[in-house]
Amino acid sequence: MSQPKLRLALFGSGRIGQVHASSIAAHPDIDLVVIADPFIDGARELADRSGARAVEDPAEVFAINDLDGVVVASPTPTHVDLMSRAAAHGLAVLCEKPIDLDIDTVLECRERISTYSVPIMLGFNRRFDPHFASIRTQVEAGSIGALEQLLITSRDPAPAPRDYIAASGGIFRDMTIHDLDMARFFIPEIVEVSAVGANVFSDDIRELNDFDSATITLRGSNGELVTIVNSRHCAFGYDQRLEAFGTDGMLSAGNVTKTLVRRYDASGTEEAPPYLPFFLERYAQAYRAELDAFAHSIRTGDPCSPSFEDGVAALVLANAAAESAITGKTVAITS
Amino acid sequence: MSQPKLRLALFGSGRIGQVHASSIAAHPDIDLVVIADPFIDGARELADRSGARAVEDPAEVFAINDLDGVVVASPTPTHVDLMSRAAAHGLAVLCEKPIDLDIDTVLECRERISTYSVPIMLGFNRRFDPHFASIRTQVEAGSIGALEQLLITSRDPAPAPRDYIAASGGIFRDMTIHDLDMARFFIPEIVEVSAVGANVFSDDIRELNDFDSATITLRGSNGELVTIVNSRHCAFGYDQRLEAFGTDGMLSAGNVTKTLVRRYDASGTEEAPPYLPFFLERYAQAYRAELDAFAHSIRTGDPCSPSFEDGVAALVLANAAAESAITGKTVAITS
Amino acid sequence: MSQPKLRLALFGSGRIGQVHASSIAAHPDIDLVVIADPFIDGARELADRSGARAVEDPAEVFAINDLDGVVVASPTPTHVDLMSRAAAHGLAVLCEKPIDLDIDTVLECRERISTYSVPIMLGFNRRFDPHFASIRTQVEAGSIGALEQLLITSRDPAPAPRDYIAASGGIFRDMTIHDLDMARFFIPEIVEVSAVGANVFSDDIRELNDFDSATITLRGSNGELVTIVNSRHCAFGYDQRLEAFGTDGMLSAGNVTKTLVRRYDASGTEEAPPYLPFFLERYAQAYRAELDAFAHSIRTGDPCSPSFEDGVAALVLANAAAESAITGKTVAITS
Amino acid sequence: MSQPKLRLALFGSGRIGQVHASSIAAHPDIDLVVIADPFIDGARELADRSGARAVEDPAEVFAINDLDGVVVASPTPTHVDLMSRAAAHGLAVLCEKPIDLDIDTVLECRERISTYSVPIMLGFNRRFDPHFASIRTQVEAGSIGALEQLLITSRDPAPAPRDYIAASGGIFRDMTIHDLDMARFFIPEIVEVSAVGANVFSDDIRELNDFDSATITLRGSNGELVTIVNSRHCAFGYDQRLEAFGTDGMLSAGNVTKTLVRRYDASGTEEAPPYLPFFLERYAQAYRAELDAFAHSIRTGDPCSPSFEDGVAALVLANAAAESAITGKTVAITS
Repeated sequence: MSQPKLRLALFGSGRIGQVHASSIAAHPDIDLVVIADPFIDGARELADRSGARAVEDPAEVFAINDLDGVVVASPTPTHVDLMSRAAAHGLAVLCEKPIDLDIDTVLECRERISTYSVPIMLGFNRRFDPHFASIRTQVEAGSIGALEQLLITSRDPAPAPRDYIAASGGIFRDMTIHDLDMARFFIPEIVEVSAVGANVFSDDIRELNDFDSATITLRGSNGELVTIVNSRHCAFGYDQRLEAFGTDGMLSAGNVTKTLVRRYDASGTEEAPPYLPFFLERYAQAYRAELDAFAHSIRTGDPCSPSFEDGVAALVLANAAAESAITGKTVAITS
Repeated sequence: MSQPKLRLALFGSGRIGQVHASSIAAHPDIDLVVIADPFIDGARELADRSGARAVEDPAEVFAINDLDGVVVASPTPTHVDLMSRAAAHGLAVLCEKPIDLDIDTVLECRERISTYSVPIMLGFNRRFDPHFASIRTQVEAGSIGALEQLLITSRDPAPAPRDYIAASGGIFRDMTIHDLDMARFFIPEIVEVSAVGANVFSDDIRELNDFDSATITLRGSNGELVTIVNSRHCAFGYDQRLEAFGTDGMLSAGNVTKTLVRRYDASGTEEAPPYLPFFLERYAQAYRAELDAFAHSIRTGDPCSPSFEDGVAALVLANAAAESAITGKTVAITS
Repeated sequence: MSQPKLRLALFGSGRIGQVHASSIAAHPDIDLVVIADPFIDGARELADRSGARAVEDPAEVFAINDLDGVVVASPTPTHVDLMSRAAAHGLAVLCEKPIDLDIDTVLECRERISTYSVPIMLGFNRRFDPHFASIRTQVEAGSIGALEQLLITSRDPAPAPRDYIAASGGIFRDMTIHDLDMARFFIPEIVEVSAVGANVFSDDIRELNDFDSATITLRGSNGELVTIVNSRHCAFGYDQRLEAFGTDGMLSAGNVTKTLVRRYDASGTEEAPPYLPFFLERYAQAYRAELDAFAHSIRTGDPCSPSFEDGVAALVLANAAAESAITGKTVAITS
Repeated sequence: MSQPKLRLALFGSGRIGQVHASSIAAHPDIDLVVIADPFIDGARELADRSGARAVEDPAEVFAINDLDGVVVASPTPTHVDLMSRAAAHGLAVLCEKPIDLDIDTVLECRERISTYSVPIMLGFNRRFDPHFASIRTQVEAGSIGALEQLLITSRDPAPAPRDYIAASGGIFRDMTIHDLDMARFFIPEIVEVSAVGANVFSDDIRELNDFDSATITLRGSNGELVTIVNSRHCAFGYDQRLEAFGTDGMLSAGNVTKTLVRRYDASGTEEAPPYLPFFLERYAQAYRAELDAFAHSIRTGDPCSPSFEDGVAALVLANAAAESAITGKTVAITS
């Protein structure tokens, strides 16, 4: 590798920031230069482990003049500001979802950054999951004929803390948004959203006027039906499944276990281990592939996928789902 | 067996009549006495194979004075008349679904037969499928805690002929009605119905103003969410699956193959045979268990399950689904 | 059915006799006329349930002059006598395995019955298991190219009582003999037998100079290798599996569960129910298909399969396995 | 990490040398300093990719005075010499299997290196496979009671070239040796070996007086039975499975696919992709874990596992299997 490595900054040293730091550490073509977090102790600890330096103020990041890009893994309210400043400094951006919870803020941001031609990638990491990506590739290749129905099952192992939920924007904008992007990964143009929310198990979530469970139905521009089944909890681990049903057949991807060991005894047979507990484990490969795609776009100038526009589109669908769940009416999406 | 066998009449010698005739033949406690069908050739052929006699006119059946009950497997428009006359003659009735496509006709029928105390059972045979019934038993026993979500996948192998579809009452009343009853098998009181229909593959069905695919979402009285995924075709056979998701875990039942043989070769591994082609094969055990439950109710006077009221309730939900799919609005069910 | 039904007698009213009685009851073309057992109470009880009459002395059976055949399900030491007398009376015979534990007795019997041309079928019921039979059919059709290796896993749920074991002829003649016939179902000519026996869990069996576990390796006439893995106990039910490995792929058949229900919870996922407990449940379909094949041979005169010769061959292999397990030497089979 | 990284040399730049080079590259605590191979072009190419330098003569490696250890991935005939010299230089050794094909050479080597106290580890990488290792851990923890039977299925996708086979020492010393070590991973003391070899598909292998298929049966010191099924080819990929059967249940590990995607169409259902093609892919994780264990032993002085003695023991069993396959007699192992 004669070329110098790509030099990235990381905003945010929390759980998701740590995932990116570790993906960068394992990537042969990327150096993590600096980690910025107002919670400077977290930044320092992660920086120590990563061979990077820690700063408190984003301005210190933008003052560095040989950076190639930034990874935005800080809290959602900071995304638009950091993304805009990075773009203004000519830095490529990999931004965690969502861009912002408010669509107007997102559209203003789109306006602002439209004048810069830096690569901007949205952190819908599940597109890079090898199982889902393989289904997508096969569907695109016509392996099951025309795609007619998509079933996305997506359940978290346990609800986030009450404070997190309160600031999350609600189940559709916080959790379903990943599934909405997965739907768009297969069917980019969604024309209609219907959603039913429910409160089945959590008083906390009910008190926050949010739902703990939901079924969302989307209609694609070719008439396809997408069904998303969500829950904020799941006793057997992180439930992340996909079924693509077409004219000539179906492709499915089930959950992932740590090993393939099966147990047989007097109480039951063929028992697999519990599923991988949560997204850090389940999507570890996806996070690394996402980073690699980001590096590729920086190196080649190829358009990023998922793009800023994919982030906008997913938020529009999430907003429509929230509206539909409250009004009991199907919401049309105008593109 | 000192008791004389139960003596049944069968209305209808078509596909579903033949299923019942063969279940009766295999039942140690039931004799098939007579088969009535205006298409007398069909009745005769089936009667010959069954050791029964064939008649054209239902009146000939009701003239027999030592019958215990009737199985109504004739076309839907005849159900209400035959059921009512049988009840009036003191005969137990096992009636194929639906009672009628028109709810007013059904309610009149309910009124009329309410004065007779004969056992009346509705032919929602899937309740007797050993796989689904086992999940129901375990859920009732609290094996997965409180039931929160139910996912019913139900796809026919291929659409019925255009004429059948035209007279069928539409996908919700003809096909989904089985899934609606399955939902009620787990959650008897459904309070809300949302449905999205689609036309993905069949021009015939579109021309008939019917849908070839649909997603239906139900809300139960305890907040449970039921999701039903339907298609009028399925390249890999008859797709009939169920997932019950609760606080403490999940139970699922997949599709049935003729044998457990798996194939491994250069193109793929662990390949199972295609799923059983259609309901005759898939639900053969269920039809026999249904008949046995009917015989049990005749012998003991125990209430039938599924009952006439289950037939009414499923039709109410199917009508609500049809309305929701057209209006794009959730429909409340008032009990 | 204008033809009168086949009329059969049954010797033995024990567990296996009861299986045959119930298969006969479910067969549309067979009447069970008489059940003979010196333990007359057992015969009477079963006869009552079966609509047959009960007799103590086999002679009473042979005195009936309109029988078509007999099913021999009495204790092994009576097989040769009953089979010979039945053949002498011109009756078709379905005889449970083994013909006898002593090869000389078997060969004398062969001599004796060779003068009669009645259908004689050996009760190696597993050939009629739909899963194994489907593999056999596919292998014969060349679906995996040339057959190279066969792996038969065969474990009983729990050892038979000490008295049964003591009289059983040992694990190879009593239990492995079924697997040896399964091997011959695929590879009729076996040329070499190597066996290793072990005493891993049962002091009783050790004291009887028998083995509780074994691995048997056979070589077929085309060089194929068959591996049989046996145990007299299995905590998770009746373990009956088959793998056929060929040049172009593999076919396998796993164990059978009562339902397809799978369980997912905090302790594990995809858990199936315990396997069917023992041969009565596991091979219920096979027993019925076996009886049907027997009836077919009586009706058509088609040769029986498995035949008397298959019974001889399996015993020869079992004897060779017993010898090999003691001497530690491979035993050549001369045909 | 304040400690300097471990500094390793690598002998051999062929397929297996490349695997180790890439494992070292991904290990945070190891630097690959030098790669030695008389085929210097190969060494150079790999060294370029690895940031190491390339040398032709092993002496150049032993002249470096700050090395911590060596990885011996050169051809088998060089193992003993390189291992001995490395030990004499105080270097830790990770040596690919087998130590040598000749047991006397191995025993001399043992004598020679016994005077040095460096860590020596044998490259039986499958012990580090997460699936097999998990079964071992559970068996050790008593999860299935006493271990009674072990079934190891091990088939290569396709035979190695004729020249490789000719120099390989035969199927038992070249291929089965991995399975023999896997047996010893569970049951360290094997007391008896019986083997049956076959020539089913390869004329080349037959001409070399070697077998292309085999079944090997081992007896453990507690009476356990181990069955190993081998083939030099397998149409559906690399077939590497394990079943551990105990008093209270069974644990199994099946084959590994690249993704969990399943296909359903008119020709079959639930079809998984072909299994990973060969050991580089199947055991990639195992190679990395093996290297990590080696580094751990160097750092801590903890004894290596698998050890030199494990290499000796596996060869003794392989020799016994070869003898048994030729003589048709069980071979006792004296420890």
